[in-house]
Amino acid sequence: MNQLSFIPLGGIGDVTKNMYIYEYGDEMLIVDCGLGFADETMLGVDLLLPDISYILQAKKKIVGMVFTHGHEDHIGALPFLLSQLLNKGPFPMYATPFTAAVANEKLKEFGVQKRIDTVNFGETPKHMGSFTALFIRVTHSIPDTSHIFITTPIGNFYHGSDFKFDDTPFDGKKSNYDVIEQVGQKGVLCLLSDCLGAERQGRLPSELDILSQFENAFGETQGRCIVTTYSSNIARLNQIILASEKYNRKVCFIGRSLVKMKDISLRLRYLQIQPQTEIQIDQIDSYPENMLTLIVAGSQGQESSAMVRIADNEHRDIRLSEHDTVIFSADPIPGNETLVYELVDTLAKRGVKVLYPPLRRDFHVSGHGSSDELLHLMRLTKPKKLVPIGGNFRHMAAYKNLALSQSFQKSDVLLLDDGQEVLFAKDGTIKLGRNVPAKNVYVDEISGEEVESFVMRDRQKLSEGGVVIVLAEVDAQNSELISKPDIIMRGFRVENDSKLYGHMIADIKTAFRGKKGRVNNWVHLRKLIGEVVERRIFKDLRRRPLVLPVVIEA
Amino acid sequence: MNQLSFIPLGGIGDVTKNMYIYEYGDEMLIVDCGLGFADETMLGVDLLLPDISYILQAKKKIVGMVFTHGHEDHIGALPFLLSQLLNKGPFPMYATPFTAAVANEKLKEFGVQKRIDTVNFGETPKHMGSFTALFIRVTHSIPDTSHIFITTPIGNFYHGSDFKFDDTPFDGKKSNYDVIEQVGQKGVLCLLSDCLGAERQGRLPSELDILSQFENAFGETQGRCIVTTYSSNIARLNQIILASEKYNRKVCFIGRSLVKMKDISLRLRYLQIQPQTEIQIDQIDSYPENMLTLIVAGSQGQESSAMVRIADNEHRDIRLSEHDTVIFSADPIPGNETLVYELVDTLAKRGVKVLYPPLRRDFHVSGHGSSDELLHLMRLTKPKKLVPIGGNFRHMAAYKNLALSQSFQKSDVLLLDDGQEVLFAKDGTIKLGRNVPAKNVYVDEISGEEVESFVMRDRQKLSEGGVVIVLAEVDAQNSELISKPDIIMRGFRVENDSKLYGHMIADIKTAFRGKKGRVNNWVHLRKLIGEVVERRIFKDLRRRPLVLPVVIEA
Repeated sequence: MNQLSFIPLGGIGDVTKNMYIYEYGDEMLIVDCGLGFADETMLGVDLLLPDISYILQAKKKIVGMVFTHGHEDHIGALPFLLSQLLNKGPFPMYATPFTAAVANEKLKEFGVQKRIDTVNFGETPKHMGSFTALFIRVTHSIPDTSHIFITTPIGNFYHGSDFKFDDTPFDGKKSNYDVIEQVGQKGVLCLLSDCLGAERQGRLPSELDILSQFENAFGETQGRCIVTTYSSNIARLNQIILASEKYNRKVCFIGRSLVKMKDISLRLRYLQIQPQTEIQIDQIDSYPENMLTLIVAGSQGQESSAMVRIADNEHRDIRLSEHDTVIFSADPIPGNETLVYELVDTLAKRGVKVLYPPLRRDFHVSGHGSSDELLHLMRLTKPKKLVPIGGNFRHMAAYKNLALSQSFQKSDVLLLDDGQEVLFAKDGTIKLGRNVPAKNVYVDEISGEEVESFVMRDRQKLSEGGVVIVLAEVDAQNSELISKPDIIMRGFRVENDSKLYGHMIADIKTAFRGKKGRVNNWVHLRKLIGEVVERRIFKDLRRRPLVLPVVIEA
Repeated sequence: MNQLSFIPLGGIGDVTKNMYIYEYGDEMLIVDCGLGFADETMLGVDLLLPDISYILQAKKKIVGMVFTHGHEDHIGALPFLLSQLLNKGPFPMYATPFTAAVANEKLKEFGVQKRIDTVNFGETPKHMGSFTALFIRVTHSIPDTSHIFITTPIGNFYHGSDFKFDDTPFDGKKSNYDVIEQVGQKGVLCLLSDCLGAERQGRLPSELDILSQFENAFGETQGRCIVTTYSSNIARLNQIILASEKYNRKVCFIGRSLVKMKDISLRLRYLQIQPQTEIQIDQIDSYPENMLTLIVAGSQGQESSAMVRIADNEHRDIRLSEHDTVIFSADPIPGNETLVYELVDTLAKRGVKVLYPPLRRDFHVSGHGSSDELLHLMRLTKPKKLVPIGGNFRHMAAYKNLALSQSFQKSDVLLLDDGQEVLFAKDGTIKLGRNVPAKNVYVDEISGEEVESFVMRDRQKLSEGGVVIVLAEVDAQNSELISKPDIIMRGFRVENDSKLYGHMIADIKTAFRGKKGRVNNWVHLRKLIGEVVERRIFKDLRRRPLVLPVVIEA
């Protein structure tokens, strides 16, 4: 009982999939429970979950779970994992209002009964076993983002995940520097800090600077203004609405993730919109083009997102016109560059005006503070030790260099791996502990649009489920199938495989019937084939094998 | 005979694979013959060739071929396609000294007899049928880059591919503004212009600014300086050598592409290096770390490049030490971000200091001019019509906006597709003509390191060759195969398939024997399996099917 164990299960070295354990005696406090996103080297897999096998097998008790903010990579895995965690016994869960609302909405959709309790900033710390957790307001790109000051019998931890220090945030709710300084004065054994912006010098510009950019663009544009941004960036939505109202533009929200975030933020009164401003998608044609702003989900070029479907001329309700201006109020998340720029090219080809970074950088500011902001947090909290979290290794290394430029020593900054335990002793000494399992756990995204309904697919299920490979040759010029797709099934037995095979071929052919003209989006096509085959196999066999569609351009 | 036909076979909308036809009567003049690079949606395929089926079937004569500069995307397809082109009858080929040397080296390696003739800047125009071609010096990121002024019976064309206007280039050889202005005064019917930098405002900084950055870094660093850059950027190599000599560092060139470029540029006296400066790889250990600069190929994180093998601790001769500083003197080419940053992360994890964009942007300047440089070329050449080339559609659209900001009309700027013919009449009128075939032609890269020895694989060969899919489950923690890989073969018959299967499994297991520790590079692993299986099938069956390795992380 003379040490505190800190174990990152995710969020180290790969930005996403944030989940951290603070362990004292037989008590565990969990911070965040986020999703990861698979890259193109992991075929047929879309989402990653943190590996909770250590938590499940440890002879310890979960005394509570707390959440820093409502982004997918901090709360998105909760619906998948909560029931397994609750098998160890009940525990309280706390988050600030917006975070709780977003996460609870997801739990509801997944049919999970349990809910997160809401904590308001300024409330006294929550007691969970030997721990207390104080929620401290910081600025980021989603409302009610929080740092969490955690006290333990061994010492105090400042859990400083995703943040920036914007002193003129659009909603006026600044980071609470006073409280940060106060807890710093109580003594911080270790600062866990966001490090994603450590490569950038100086400070970020304020979110407030963006409003005038929208106003200028909306004033100048003769046609519709179509803005794509992160659905959860409510401050951004507010600015787009305000600029629209200034120029008498009606606002229509398009895309499921966006509409859901709009509903939650309206309910919590975080979104300000005049009663006459919002219109529905079927009213668009009743207004002249210069009276319309469309806010559309899909700023990352996500396949099947509303923005991609609009660009591909495959959206049910929206057809682009040459007077439209499309504004990207978002940077490509690293790894998404190819998808985003494919989307920009497709839009440019349709003859619409496109404002995107790097052509126009002034419609977006990052949510992750630059060097000076990271240094500011270091100075306010005055920690003994530092652990950068939420970045790739290069960001962690850049953060370490920042710390070394201050009074910190090399041994004060720990660059960890997922699963690497650190043991903190009361006298301030630290040592590395066990390596607990921190494998990637794959989840396949079934819903095309977004993170909504999935099938859990852990390793065992995968090997039970088998593998289906679909090889389709597609003519690039006219989007037609060249010949019957080749379908290879492994790992399960089918009673009447020629019948199933016939069904799958027919389904794929049907899916291709609507496709015309040059292929714009090969990723989308590959996905489409995968979805059709998955659906058919589930329908006929009630199985969910790993489906790997391979499209050959011809 | 009252019109000139311009046909881009590649280089429109996808940056690479540059190849253009100027056609008058029954004569064709070809400009450039470049490779394209496949993206991750085209599994099992590495390189793309321009589709020359139109040239081969047209009842026209090739009167000549000219080349703008020695980059792969302008000359790299020549070795694959030249013998087919020569089947139509002999024709002359011209390029400036460095371009010709690089391309001729490739022709030699491929066993092609024919060579490109060297033209020096300042020589009188080359006559080819009804065309003449004048080579005009411009600055870019490879020596002897040229714009080509082409006269035709219908009017004059300024073929302004890849360039920037650097007025203090490292080699002192500025763009020849006088000649550009002179040909502009003769009247330019159409300017074909690089557009890749059209999104950036202003002018690029000069290459010269980089020298002091290298000097500072080499002076400060206690250990080895390891610089990775584009092999063909000889000015950059010269600066690295000069800065090394200032600090008494020996220089070692590592990587086949780099050594080849070094040899060519030494032969042509484009590279300046003191006799004692260069050392060979086996001499490295004879010098203290602060006396060494290693120039290493692989700045794009190319799998199997020297830089990636060094980072993965898999290079035969080089082991990283914690005193090393690795400098990226290159930006990630769009689409390569994931590979490049994976490489940076791996290096950072080894504990070396890494200087890379965006952390440090001052070791690289683009080779493609920004808006003001593009406008400068427009003003000097005073064309009637404009065709942006060598960019994605968004760059073409940005270029069009630049032109519209001048005195040009919408109808003066043509945004084309590959294969879209444009017909120019003597009176200056233009119209769109045929759509000639411009499909992607795939080539598989066999040599891991670079564009050197390939197997041509057109559609027919692919369908004759069949398909092999290898499914391997690999443990992320220790790089071990979880179970026997699944191998699925389609499209060809094997006499004794269990024997072949056994061979393949054994080969894969052997390949994995050297792998230890956490998997760093999944792409590399996938490629390794592919190569092993390809080699085995070729050895046992003399076949080259399409091999699709699928690696499942476990």
